[in-house]
Amino acid sequence: MTPEQRFADLGLILPPAPKAVAVYKTLLIDGRHCYVSGHGPYMADGTLIKGKVGVDLHAEEAQAAALQTGLAILATLKHGLGSLNRVKRVIKILGMVNAVPEYENHPYVINGCSELFAKVWGVENGVGVRSAVGMGSLPNNIPVEIEALFELE
Amino acid sequence: MTPEQRFADLGLILPPAPKAVAVYKTLLIDGRHCYVSGHGPYMADGTLIKGKVGVDLHAEEAQAAALQTGLAILATLKHGLGSLNRVKRVIKILGMVNAVPEYENHPYVINGCSELFAKVWGVENGVGVRSAVGMGSLPNNIPVEIEALFELE
Amino acid sequence: MTPEQRFADLGLILPPAPKAVAVYKTLLIDGRHCYVSGHGPYMADGTLIKGKVGVDLHAEEAQAAALQTGLAILATLKHGLGSLNRVKRVIKILGMVNAVPEYENHPYVINGCSELFAKVWGVENGVGVRSAVGMGSLPNNIPVEIEALFELE
Repeated sequence: MTPEQRFADLGLILPPAPKAVAVYKTLLIDGRHCYVSGHGPYMADGTLIKGKVGVDLHAEEAQAAALQTGLAILATLKHGLGSLNRVKRVIKILGMVNAVPEYENHPYVINGCSELFAKVWGVENGVGVRSAVGMGSLPNNIPVEIEALFELE
Repeated sequence: MTPEQRFADLGLILPPAPKAVAVYKTLLIDGRHCYVSGHGPYMADGTLIKGKVGVDLHAEEAQAAALQTGLAILATLKHGLGSLNRVKRVIKILGMVNAVPEYENHPYVINGCSELFAKVWGVENGVGVRSAVGMGSLPNNIPVEIEALFELE
Repeated sequence: MTPEQRFADLGLILPPAPKAVAVYKTLLIDGRHCYVSGHGPYMADGTLIKGKVGVDLHAEEAQAAALQTGLAILATLKHGLGSLNRVKRVIKILGMVNAVPEYENHPYVINGCSELFAKVWGVENGVGVRSAVGMGSLPNNIPVEIEALFELE
């Protein structure tokens, strides 16, 4: 099974590939590496999930937002690379949670993205290193922002 | 036009290249990559802009602080590499804003740095991937800290 | 002297190599680079130091937590690579401090890790680029989390 086939089997819907809203590229290829900018939780209709984790969103809602963020990253990869099959493996993600100061469950939240990548590229290649941490604030008050580094085939 | 010529045409003044204030290098070369430590908003006289965005600084002041942070990074590149011409392109920046918990305009703030880099290396090479996010606090209560990864010629 | 010999001379005790508590690898090798996930301050008995810097921990306690975080990273390197001697140098660390909004001494805190690495690999190879910044929150309310990138021999 290819990553594209594995993704199709999940029955999930990609949001539109996010456009850059400021002075950055959403994706940059550097040799066999593909860097992806910080992405937010886009729904299939192109709107953003908003709110602070621990007050506006509970853990399950935040994990669902991290899944949507992962889907937005997949949309950017497909748009920029043509196919998810061009990605060999996940090297690194930085999972940033917009949470109240006493929040403690960032790893659970970011698993929403990590489990998606593990399904698309498999447990060995879809799981890389990671930090899952709490920010003081995020653009547009989104609950989750994730940046990533992939290795290309 | 070279990056040095483009920078000269901007009529901007570089701050002194920041010295490491703790146990780190301000710049490290790894093959054709140049990593730059988190930099703060140094003025031309070597002093730091301070304050929290959303309470001490409004958006325009914060964007000006991000410009000074970008200038400090350029000073580090010139000091460490000899010339801005040795940089081929921007790969990635992480733009960190010291903001109140409800702040939402991080991309606008970090554009202060990104637009500078776009002018120095051009829109294709001066713009890389980016995350622009809100921190809970920053050293010396600076409003902006930016780290960067460049590709060398 | 090798890094292993230098570490032995310090008389410090490594905590057990942390296991991944979610969907990530603690260490990933990519050619001559070794990426390490965000690590927390593990004590030799495997328990985590907890608390927010500036209210629960003062600067010296926080720096000691950053030292334990550095030791946890060394434990991961030894477990994943077999020996600290396989690491040629530190390229980059991201030092994240779980601090109150007015905290200003992040570089002092993260030096707890940076000074350890400087002792193990020497001042030239053990010191890389760095950002030392304040997070809004961290998993399990740990005071410090550090991720790192090393170059292998």
